[in-house]
Amino acid sequence: MELYREPGYDKVTVAEIAAHAGLTPRTFFRHFADKREVLFFGTDEVEALVVEGIMTAAEGTPALEVVATALTPIAKLNDEDPVHADYARQRHLVIQAYGELRERELGKHASLASAISTALRSRGVAGPAAKLAAETGLAAFTVGFERWIDDPKRRGMRAHVREAMRELGSVVRGSVVLGHAR
Amino acid sequence: MELYREPGYDKVTVAEIAAHAGLTPRTFFRHFADKREVLFFGTDEVEALVVEGIMTAAEGTPALEVVATALTPIAKLNDEDPVHADYARQRHLVIQAYGELRERELGKHASLASAISTALRSRGVAGPAAKLAAETGLAAFTVGFERWIDDPKRRGMRAHVREAMRELGSVVRGSVVLGHAR
Repeated sequence: MELYREPGYDKVTVAEIAAHAGLTPRTFFRHFADKREVLFFGTDEVEALVVEGIMTAAEGTPALEVVATALTPIAKLNDEDPVHADYARQRHLVIQAYGELRERELGKHASLASAISTALRSRGVAGPAAKLAAETGLAAFTVGFERWIDDPKRRGMRAHVREAMRELGSVVRGSVVLGHAR
Repeated sequence: MELYREPGYDKVTVAEIAAHAGLTPRTFFRHFADKREVLFFGTDEVEALVVEGIMTAAEGTPALEVVATALTPIAKLNDEDPVHADYARQRHLVIQAYGELRERELGKHASLASAISTALRSRGVAGPAAKLAAETGLAAFTVGFERWIDDPKRRGMRAHVREAMRELGSVVRGSVVLGHAR
């Protein structure tokens, strides 16, 4: 991660990243398809964890609540492990700084949304509702994550995600209204 | 569009597309960055139209309703112009069939969400609520679009989008619940 910040993601070579990690480039490519993938290492495990959460949720639980609960372990990890939290913040800065990383992030986000939606469907939620619960739950989670990143008071990520979920309720109920035109 | 279906998006060359449209490859590249962009021609205009809709919406209107209303002209065009509707359906099939097109579509979707969110903020909606209204409004619109594409009864796109918006309300209110585990 240091190398992605200085000299910078676009300047560092795979040979440098591999050497930094004590690997040969050949071993590097056995683990990662390209230097983008290093930043997304572990996202498959996160996806599996979230799906597992949905598959084991209690019958009768509202679908959106199930999605929120299934995503909670990610926020919990950031709240309880400062090293992980610091990594998450730095990783976010690096991704935001490069178009091709933002693009990969969008792809991973879409893949997670699709996995959540599929899991909800297999729990009997109809297709359109499953997709809406996945997309809105993830949107609230992302808003909470971004607020957590920017919070000068350093409140926990779970608190920010809960707040974003409440905000989602206000938006959909229609209690967030437009102000005057410019 | 015919060339993207047969011989297929991956097989057709820029020279063939240009010739089909009566252009030289040089003229083609003056209008499009690459052969992907042909399929996304007009998305900037759509974005401008949606933003305009938000900027001119009445003060006091709920933000999510504003987003839904601003997106309506797109659905209306599909409902009123069969040629446009047919193009939209074929375009969707081509995009879904190729990873690199789906990726570009994700980028365009993110750009539209960001433009909607920025427009809402400039109308006095707080950042997190603006982002949530943009993301949830677009998610409902997309679900409505996909149902419209798949509808054997060929009901109008506006009806499908309205239905998806109602469904969004049910999901967020918590009235969509999980069934039994597999």
